[in-house]
Amino acid sequence: MKAGIIGANGYSGVELIRFLINHPNVEIEMLISHSTSGKNVKELYPHLSKVCEKPLENVDVDEVAEKVDLLFFATPSGVSQNLVPEFLDKGLTCIDLSGDFRLNDPEKYTKWYQKPAADQSYLQQAVYGLSEFYKEQIKNAKLIANPGCYPTAALLGILPAAKMGLVDLETLIIDGKSGASGAGRGVSLGSHFCEVNENVKAYKVGVHQHTPEIEQTIQSITGEQTNLSFTPHLIPMTRGIMCTVYASLKKPLSTEEAVEHYKQFYESDHFVRVREPGYWPATKEVYGSNYCDIGIVSDERTNRLMIISVIDNVVKGASGQAIQNMNLMNGWEEWTGLTLTPAYP
Amino acid sequence: MKAGIIGANGYSGVELIRFLINHPNVEIEMLISHSTSGKNVKELYPHLSKVCEKPLENVDVDEVAEKVDLLFFATPSGVSQNLVPEFLDKGLTCIDLSGDFRLNDPEKYTKWYQKPAADQSYLQQAVYGLSEFYKEQIKNAKLIANPGCYPTAALLGILPAAKMGLVDLETLIIDGKSGASGAGRGVSLGSHFCEVNENVKAYKVGVHQHTPEIEQTIQSITGEQTNLSFTPHLIPMTRGIMCTVYASLKKPLSTEEAVEHYKQFYESDHFVRVREPGYWPATKEVYGSNYCDIGIVSDERTNRLMIISVIDNVVKGASGQAIQNMNLMNGWEEWTGLTLTPAYP
Amino acid sequence: MKAGIIGANGYSGVELIRFLINHPNVEIEMLISHSTSGKNVKELYPHLSKVCEKPLENVDVDEVAEKVDLLFFATPSGVSQNLVPEFLDKGLTCIDLSGDFRLNDPEKYTKWYQKPAADQSYLQQAVYGLSEFYKEQIKNAKLIANPGCYPTAALLGILPAAKMGLVDLETLIIDGKSGASGAGRGVSLGSHFCEVNENVKAYKVGVHQHTPEIEQTIQSITGEQTNLSFTPHLIPMTRGIMCTVYASLKKPLSTEEAVEHYKQFYESDHFVRVREPGYWPATKEVYGSNYCDIGIVSDERTNRLMIISVIDNVVKGASGQAIQNMNLMNGWEEWTGLTLTPAYP
Amino acid sequence: MKAGIIGANGYSGVELIRFLINHPNVEIEMLISHSTSGKNVKELYPHLSKVCEKPLENVDVDEVAEKVDLLFFATPSGVSQNLVPEFLDKGLTCIDLSGDFRLNDPEKYTKWYQKPAADQSYLQQAVYGLSEFYKEQIKNAKLIANPGCYPTAALLGILPAAKMGLVDLETLIIDGKSGASGAGRGVSLGSHFCEVNENVKAYKVGVHQHTPEIEQTIQSITGEQTNLSFTPHLIPMTRGIMCTVYASLKKPLSTEEAVEHYKQFYESDHFVRVREPGYWPATKEVYGSNYCDIGIVSDERTNRLMIISVIDNVVKGASGQAIQNMNLMNGWEEWTGLTLTPAYP
Repeated sequence: MKAGIIGANGYSGVELIRFLINHPNVEIEMLISHSTSGKNVKELYPHLSKVCEKPLENVDVDEVAEKVDLLFFATPSGVSQNLVPEFLDKGLTCIDLSGDFRLNDPEKYTKWYQKPAADQSYLQQAVYGLSEFYKEQIKNAKLIANPGCYPTAALLGILPAAKMGLVDLETLIIDGKSGASGAGRGVSLGSHFCEVNENVKAYKVGVHQHTPEIEQTIQSITGEQTNLSFTPHLIPMTRGIMCTVYASLKKPLSTEEAVEHYKQFYESDHFVRVREPGYWPATKEVYGSNYCDIGIVSDERTNRLMIISVIDNVVKGASGQAIQNMNLMNGWEEWTGLTLTPAYP
Repeated sequence: MKAGIIGANGYSGVELIRFLINHPNVEIEMLISHSTSGKNVKELYPHLSKVCEKPLENVDVDEVAEKVDLLFFATPSGVSQNLVPEFLDKGLTCIDLSGDFRLNDPEKYTKWYQKPAADQSYLQQAVYGLSEFYKEQIKNAKLIANPGCYPTAALLGILPAAKMGLVDLETLIIDGKSGASGAGRGVSLGSHFCEVNENVKAYKVGVHQHTPEIEQTIQSITGEQTNLSFTPHLIPMTRGIMCTVYASLKKPLSTEEAVEHYKQFYESDHFVRVREPGYWPATKEVYGSNYCDIGIVSDERTNRLMIISVIDNVVKGASGQAIQNMNLMNGWEEWTGLTLTPAYP
Repeated sequence: MKAGIIGANGYSGVELIRFLINHPNVEIEMLISHSTSGKNVKELYPHLSKVCEKPLENVDVDEVAEKVDLLFFATPSGVSQNLVPEFLDKGLTCIDLSGDFRLNDPEKYTKWYQKPAADQSYLQQAVYGLSEFYKEQIKNAKLIANPGCYPTAALLGILPAAKMGLVDLETLIIDGKSGASGAGRGVSLGSHFCEVNENVKAYKVGVHQHTPEIEQTIQSITGEQTNLSFTPHLIPMTRGIMCTVYASLKKPLSTEEAVEHYKQFYESDHFVRVREPGYWPATKEVYGSNYCDIGIVSDERTNRLMIISVIDNVVKGASGQAIQNMNLMNGWEEWTGLTLTPAYP
Repeated sequence: MKAGIIGANGYSGVELIRFLINHPNVEIEMLISHSTSGKNVKELYPHLSKVCEKPLENVDVDEVAEKVDLLFFATPSGVSQNLVPEFLDKGLTCIDLSGDFRLNDPEKYTKWYQKPAADQSYLQQAVYGLSEFYKEQIKNAKLIANPGCYPTAALLGILPAAKMGLVDLETLIIDGKSGASGAGRGVSLGSHFCEVNENVKAYKVGVHQHTPEIEQTIQSITGEQTNLSFTPHLIPMTRGIMCTVYASLKKPLSTEEAVEHYKQFYESDHFVRVREPGYWPATKEVYGSNYCDIGIVSDERTNRLMIISVIDNVVKGASGQAIQNMNLMNGWEEWTGLTLTPAYP
């Protein structure tokens, strides 16, 4: 299978390269980047010397369609909505890592992203690529809306409790902590080393575009509508996301019982690891890998369930999950090309 | 006034030195450290060369009582409860930076600290040194229980809303993020550079000893009892604490109104700075200083108030507030010796 | 005395504010910034709330000359050379933190900075502000060329050995390590958090513009011309510079003797601290302060002297030394307003 | 082939697991750790959950010899010298990541390590495992002395120039910068997060035990004896080593020529990547991989060659090179199980 990457000059793009280069069933055929076309990817990323020394090219729809079977979009929001329809119509499979096809409701997209939304008919074709929850739909999809990094961590943490009806969804609060790579390689004061290092700051409080994505998916899985609080924080590290989730229990439940529920729930999911009672995961424990690690505490003093969920935002929160979805779409084992152990320390 | 520091070999101890060395009304008379006595403090901390080159001494109660008027305890929990009574009886003023005299109820201390508590009669003498809220009591105190780092940040953020009755205290959730200096200079795997760097981890989920301290103070100020959720996280930085507070509003309130309330509330407090609507503080903005910066968002989607409060844990969360309390006790301006601007970047 | 700061929106600019705001003899009269004029400095730097809430203004030479006695230039290279002459002619004292007036030879400036140089007549007026070595000239200067960060660390390390003739200057090698604040607040891929964190890189190898500044000063002090190697490295921290200096000894000399020579040499210099034999300084030990700490090793195996010199690049390497020079020019104690202890940890 | 790891509880130990777990020809049969025996490795390292959940066992020579063909020693210096002889005598192949068998001369070992040395007869059997330079000897070895992290980076940088006679070896200076993982997982004040973060410090100046290892290997390759200067520095990152090498050129040579020489020299070496003229490598560009990246500058002003060499100290500087040597010993492609692309960012 021949794959292309649009937006190959960004962090998610090169992370796709890292996984695809060792994937047994896929060949990287084209690297596409509007802003850096003409250069070799190793000029922008010397770590790819001897690994992948392909040129970055402009998008030529016909040429791409001819050379490539599968296209990854590692582009900022607002880009793929204009390109995906053309490629779908030419028969390519598309996996979009941006937010353009995640929200079913174009008005919500416009409200939270402050941009026009993708065409409704294509929105309807898109399958939300949270691999552990939409396996069957993913298998038959031509267009995957790959989940956001925060939603992946938050949803893998919340959904079992939500689906099992353990918690009152109206009380749901998600406190997110992310490394700086989530904002991409673009330069801005907000990602200046001296502004991020030895610092923690909240951002987009109450208005982050991942909020409706989380709410929509909870509704899709449970049938229940919810308005939740989600507060993202930037912390001084490169990779990793932690979501600390708080929700009131409907009925008393011990930590041991909660952990047991989660273990059973994720029993057959290769990439989810549930910690034993009394242990909570750290982002470093999934660094560079496609795992999502989850710890659970039931606090009887407050009658709340606390769920701590960690991923590597560039892997399970972006490129790794995209590969996982590609595997599912093609009937390959979902871990094909993804069996990297976290690099610790 | 002559001051001594017990536990001068720890981070809070040397931070007291940093402030006292430039304080116009105080002289550092003795540095006391059981474990490193005999050494000069500059051997342990070369940054103090030419600044403070005093020896570290053993505790000799009579000698200390003779030389010193005021004693700071920068010791781990369980130490000051045995020493403070003797020094109080000899007429010294004591400011205890540990948790030993913070909880009124000895049973709570024993439950959360898992140690025997201080003698009840001395617990009753202790004044909780949250400077902005107990000014009058502090002025007349002989023994100050200096607040913990998380409680200082959390309480300065919550108490105005709690006192004004804006929020439902039963819904209170505090998500804390701290740098590694909060755990002190003692060596352990948990503070190993390679385990902290590029990592975030939750710890003591549901069982952190600062929880009852926060609850007790909310009750002291509002008369209302509450069981709240507090989850501390270790993030890869040295100094700084952020508390992100969530609570449901009793009545609708705009962000602008909430900010205005807070501004009025803290109008005469030198060290509290309330951000304008739409701005949230970052820990770096208080680095090395005694400020507490607060940002507020009222989210009408969820009917929740979010309060973000930051301090430097070693300053306002420990040694700086201790100096502030010393100033109040002596009738000096509360900012005497504390007018350091945050070092940015 | 009334002071103004041109380039008040950069890191050196706000660091000047941090020191001047507490200086007993100076008042900050004007903050000038071309690119951000019209804003209040606290909008760009919330850490200055309640500390310094002045507007940033455009440069109006007449207005500035009327209001201000002393002007600090915290501007990128190429700016002050055009403004300083006007202000000097109007009788103001100027302290230039940029490189524009450091090199006596305009051709060297043009070669290393790749820009036209300042007017020769003004170059001749400028006094190189390495406080410990040019005290008398500084006292009588109207224009100070404040040294670069690397040259300050390197020269304070090398000059005693060079002046005493202990080492062969033809063998001089300086390996520099700097935090990211040295490159300023401007955004670029090179200062992106994800590119700096968990990384070390050399830059401008063999062509860094601080090279001729170091060589010129060694010649000024010793009379000897030298071509030295200087290699700067960016390491993942915000503040701090270390220079590791290597030079062959002319005659055998023990570490103890070398240390003793240095101690005597700097005996009356408030801001230089020489470590005992067997101890070497770390940048954190001078963090936020105006100290330069120096450690020395004489290695008889290789017949080389190794000198390790550390400063806070924003303080002794920029704004702190500028204040020190201002103090000298005005006959005040050189440490006035600069007695901040390093913040440790 | 069945492999065992002694010292499986340290950073090099778990890094061996990371590579071996995906190695097509090897099975991890035993994990041995004296200090943590009885635990499961995933208790110490939760990142290994579902990846490697083996128990840590005590050393029982007979049992190990029966179960295992190949033994990796990831132990502190002084340990393997007592165990290796027994295992060799029982027919096992040993790869020792410690320094115990690297120095041919036991007196040198005792002088630099301040410990008794291994038995001379076993020292003579040991082959120094710098893969790129001793391929033939490694193929026939039963005992590999795997190189130190600094020597690997330094030697891969220096040896081509030394072997080609380009530089005067008497002028050789190596300035090393390392992340904190090089010191292992043991707790000490020196690896406390708050002491390493925002800090750079030199250590063991003139007395680091890797110095004679570098000198011995240069002599082995060139026949020339040399006394060089090597200064290690600890910088605030977890993984990565950079060696900046300075040496005087014997004859003028352009950067382009020098780069060309190096490219030809390493033409057939999979894991060495030479940068184009004007580019220098950064440690992040080899993060998590077995590459060594090298940049070269010839500075005609000073007539010096500067060589900048970077590796991941835990991979090419330890466990990765050990696997590479295992591959060579068994006649497998040297990159078997080692084709991980650096994780960037």
